[in-house]
Amino acid sequence: MKSNNLSYGVNRRALISSLALLPALSAALRPGSAPAQATQGPPLASWNEGPAKQAILDFVRATTDQSSPKFVPPVNRIATFDQDGTLWVEHPMYSQLMYCLDRVPALVAQKQELRNEEPFKTVLSGNEEAIAKLTLPELEKIIITTLTGMTTDEFDAEVKKWLATSKDRRWRRHYTELTYKPMQEVMSHLRANGYKTFIVTGFGQDFVRVYSQQVYDIPPEQVVGSALATKYGYANDGKPILIKEPKLILNNNDAGKPEGIHLMIGRRPYAAFGNSTGDRQMLEYTGAGDGARLMMLVLHDDAQREYAYGPAQGLPDTKVGTFTQELYDEAKKNGWTVISMKNDWKRIFAFE
Amino acid sequence: MKSNNLSYGVNRRALISSLALLPALSAALRPGSAPAQATQGPPLASWNEGPAKQAILDFVRATTDQSSPKFVPPVNRIATFDQDGTLWVEHPMYSQLMYCLDRVPALVAQKQELRNEEPFKTVLSGNEEAIAKLTLPELEKIIITTLTGMTTDEFDAEVKKWLATSKDRRWRRHYTELTYKPMQEVMSHLRANGYKTFIVTGFGQDFVRVYSQQVYDIPPEQVVGSALATKYGYANDGKPILIKEPKLILNNNDAGKPEGIHLMIGRRPYAAFGNSTGDRQMLEYTGAGDGARLMMLVLHDDAQREYAYGPAQGLPDTKVGTFTQELYDEAKKNGWTVISMKNDWKRIFAFE
Repeated sequence: MKSNNLSYGVNRRALISSLALLPALSAALRPGSAPAQATQGPPLASWNEGPAKQAILDFVRATTDQSSPKFVPPVNRIATFDQDGTLWVEHPMYSQLMYCLDRVPALVAQKQELRNEEPFKTVLSGNEEAIAKLTLPELEKIIITTLTGMTTDEFDAEVKKWLATSKDRRWRRHYTELTYKPMQEVMSHLRANGYKTFIVTGFGQDFVRVYSQQVYDIPPEQVVGSALATKYGYANDGKPILIKEPKLILNNNDAGKPEGIHLMIGRRPYAAFGNSTGDRQMLEYTGAGDGARLMMLVLHDDAQREYAYGPAQGLPDTKVGTFTQELYDEAKKNGWTVISMKNDWKRIFAFE
Repeated sequence: MKSNNLSYGVNRRALISSLALLPALSAALRPGSAPAQATQGPPLASWNEGPAKQAILDFVRATTDQSSPKFVPPVNRIATFDQDGTLWVEHPMYSQLMYCLDRVPALVAQKQELRNEEPFKTVLSGNEEAIAKLTLPELEKIIITTLTGMTTDEFDAEVKKWLATSKDRRWRRHYTELTYKPMQEVMSHLRANGYKTFIVTGFGQDFVRVYSQQVYDIPPEQVVGSALATKYGYANDGKPILIKEPKLILNNNDAGKPEGIHLMIGRRPYAAFGNSTGDRQMLEYTGAGDGARLMMLVLHDDAQREYAYGPAQGLPDTKVGTFTQELYDEAKKNGWTVISMKNDWKRIFAFE
């Protein structure tokens, strides 16, 4: 694991571009959320007929039919999913980064000495242009400072509150509502056929674990992500606590994904889903196993219903997530299936 | 996580004492194993009536009866078990350490330059007295060298072969047969009541994961342990591989246990089982949660059927695992239940 990169693999240019689109760092307004739920009924109902849907159905049949030469015993059925851009919207900014920026006012309220210190001063100013110019070390400082120094219980409570009150600017929906219904259906279909589904995210696993059960029907222990260390100790009243420390112990991006999968799951997946170069090694590692393996990449080519980005489509350069021409070529060469949001998905969200 | 301690928390004096009891580092002789299986039927059939058995039954009832004020939703039912000394025999030596010593001849066959280098030269000599005098840094060198430098697939194959051919000196049984039947029954009873069971071991998780499904009915991803880093790369034929690296990223002992539980499971257990000071923090952390919690410690006080060690019983000082008077006192103060192997268990092993 790369232990000195505190950026969580955030692409610098992507961040800078994205920050220009930031809404004012508004305090959250209203509680309540209605996360997307996987529906019951025929599998993959939100998918159009086509090679992507067929690849999923064929894979599940081949690995669960006892008469199939590619049958996989239930105990070995593992499927891994990247989160941002694969299971939910990552545009115009990763939601966890939004969380970190939104936390700055509360952080400064507790630590007044930060009020006039950069980069916190700039974030507090609400000046979007200045925020967009923050350097990568400055952004790392914000990420680390807002995610550490509290107990794990306090962190969970803060994230829950933020999720219940913050909304996406375009859809005016809670972030947890912005999961892709077709991908929820893939996870449901796999689980209905004995697969254990895991999220394998480049962002912080502690963040995703707060809502993974409610949003994805995936328990916390099936979320693998970048991780900061915790330190065991005792509160003033003697109660044992875990404090979140400013030390990255897992950088779950790129080669870190198969490494993280080995550390946390301990075996090779049979199916893996991603949407960017950060997922390339996870798909390679999955594909290197024998028997039937399913590797899929979500291509964001639907500007009308969601977003369009990625040079593979001759579209403008990506803001977040990087589906490069090189990745597209590797997918084609390796027999990975590219999912076109525009063509393969009947609908994007459960609320539509 | 303590990242520079490569000893896996091995107690130096314990090791030195134990090494004197080492059988010659014999090559394994015969394949085949018949691991203990959890039985079906009434719960805890191998337990005598008494406070320990009652504590388990009461806990399960209180947390799974919907009318109970201490009811725990199925999705939150987590139970963690230390392995060595809690689920299987740790005396006279941790089995993974035995594996590392047994691997030295094969290692030297591949790397001839180690033949005349210490500590490998001493291990190859088979001189038990000299082996017993190896220093902790020398033992660490053996552990690290024998567990790294190969792919994860190669490591798995080596461990499987060793398990199939190596035997314990006293019972002349495969190590995987030396699991405690009463503890297998506890895990079965918990699982039958919706609990997810996890192993939380101070030794290497990659080692335990090789046999956890077969021996404990626990899948690899539910084994948390000390862990060496892996590095993603490509073999000469271009195939993606993970190489085991000589870098400790998790030291899953003492405070490392709750820290490892947070990293790998992401929430507090409702029940935790251990047998030594290395488990103290895991039990404290578990007990600090609200509602019903079950904390238990296995006391080795049965020299006839297994082993007796631990000052809490006025027995000779421990060789491995340390059940100190201080731990015994903390257990009594905190309401943790001490399991007496002698009094609480009708039988120890499935093969009896």
